[in-house]
Amino acid sequence: MAAWARAVRGLLLDISGVLYDSGGEGGGVPIAGSAEAVRRIKASGLKLRFCTNETQATREKFVKKLQGLGFDISVAEVTAPAPAACRLLKERGLRPHLLVHDDLVPEFADVDKTNPNCVVIGDAAENFSYANLNEAFRVLIGLEKPVLISLGKGRYYKETDGLKLDVGAYMKALEYACDVQAEVVGKPAKAFFESALAEMGVPPEQAIMIGDDIVSDVGGAQQCGMRAVQVRTGKYRTRGGGSAKRHGKKQGWPNEVSWRKKHNMMVPKNRSESPGPFKCYKSWETEERASMGDKKDIPI
Amino acid sequence: MAAWARAVRGLLLDISGVLYDSGGEGGGVPIAGSAEAVRRIKASGLKLRFCTNETQATREKFVKKLQGLGFDISVAEVTAPAPAACRLLKERGLRPHLLVHDDLVPEFADVDKTNPNCVVIGDAAENFSYANLNEAFRVLIGLEKPVLISLGKGRYYKETDGLKLDVGAYMKALEYACDVQAEVVGKPAKAFFESALAEMGVPPEQAIMIGDDIVSDVGGAQQCGMRAVQVRTGKYRTRGGGSAKRHGKKQGWPNEVSWRKKHNMMVPKNRSESPGPFKCYKSWETEERASMGDKKDIPI
Repeated sequence: MAAWARAVRGLLLDISGVLYDSGGEGGGVPIAGSAEAVRRIKASGLKLRFCTNETQATREKFVKKLQGLGFDISVAEVTAPAPAACRLLKERGLRPHLLVHDDLVPEFADVDKTNPNCVVIGDAAENFSYANLNEAFRVLIGLEKPVLISLGKGRYYKETDGLKLDVGAYMKALEYACDVQAEVVGKPAKAFFESALAEMGVPPEQAIMIGDDIVSDVGGAQQCGMRAVQVRTGKYRTRGGGSAKRHGKKQGWPNEVSWRKKHNMMVPKNRSESPGPFKCYKSWETEERASMGDKKDIPI
Repeated sequence: MAAWARAVRGLLLDISGVLYDSGGEGGGVPIAGSAEAVRRIKASGLKLRFCTNETQATREKFVKKLQGLGFDISVAEVTAPAPAACRLLKERGLRPHLLVHDDLVPEFADVDKTNPNCVVIGDAAENFSYANLNEAFRVLIGLEKPVLISLGKGRYYKETDGLKLDVGAYMKALEYACDVQAEVVGKPAKAFFESALAEMGVPPEQAIMIGDDIVSDVGGAQQCGMRAVQVRTGKYRTRGGGSAKRHGKKQGWPNEVSWRKKHNMMVPKNRSESPGPFKCYKSWETEERASMGDKKDIPI
């Protein structure tokens, strides 16, 4: 076993696009093999933390849905942006105008929302109406010092009926209109990953982030000193556009290879198989060959 | 009369926020004194061109509304983005998916819209729904080489019931989601101003742009070699945020002063009067005092 593999003690798993595709009547569809993979990760003795930017529901509701889809997951294992945002709001005496999904509102029950002095934006989905966007804009532009807090900066995600714009796109719209820069709570914010690592009790060099978003998951984890894997499920796309262009495409991106069986946790795949969960990229193979530490410049 | 004033032969006038505030039952409300100002400009013998990024209606419909509000204006005097976009689409064999206001669609009647290979975005107003934005996004991200054409890049504008997000905000959302840069047709594109100048037959150094948007109107005209005035009507705001920050705030921006009566066309105002149309900024006064040509570095 390669040195880098022996050094791994904890895994951070993205959920949407990695474990399941959201949307549709039942709230989503598990990605084949993912529930079994979670069980094997847990059985392996590795520490595990679910790291999600999911903001269409409270953690309680979200976890209940995932349990219903067959996942071994509990609320205590989930790091999500809304609780982090609530801490930040209270610390700074901020009273938010919320542009979020109806089902997320209960997370902000204990926060003073009268006479708003900031705007909090999440993946509001159908609440991203013309009227609601104008309302949030008017609150923001009317502030002496506009403060925009965004629960993530994802570009888009995949639901069962197709790709959808994520909160990052709407965050950019408000940033541009008000000439402000949003404070991002959630991935890829460093504080968010650090919080998840602290909750696991694992240092960054012994943890791996697995996600389908090259910026929020892979980029964010790297900036925190972790390594990261981008899976080919969820929103993964083989060609440019999207965020993939920004990270490593020029560095030989991406040739899929199998991820060697490790800690008995990963689904072993070979090149001929169709894309599935827990596949990764050439740089992983390269890194494995070179052994950890020899190639510091490898992007993941 | 100062040298710079004698050199002026043509005026380019923004419409929304300068001549009238759009919105409401009647489609808008004239800004006090503006209809009279247009008449005086025309009577003065100056050449006049209306330069608008208005994309909520065909030019015909838009002009009819303005005539109804008391303005002396004809379709032939208006430079607008949609006809410019149609020329560009045809030249490049582009077939648009339109995310525009229903009332603008007739402008694209002669353009092939089957099997889209680009997205054209205008100020779609109520058509900026969650579903429509996702649809435009999916068309764009599905293209081998995503092409996004935006009919302007305004941040926001003022309607009778308040400020509204303009096309630029939604353009930024799609740009971010698809990692593309929009091609802007309309202000502040250089080609747009050049077209307006050509239609007037006046060189840029003899023309002045008057608008309420510091980027689309003032910045765009400056880049084209014109001088420009930002009026305090429409979306004008005294403090930061918005676009004002980007242009010249650090250069002493803005102290309102009167604009000297010139060509018998402008509404003379003095410092004590409340903000009205055709007011301008200190740099104008400075420029007037210094005489044209002495202070090339003055922002307007």
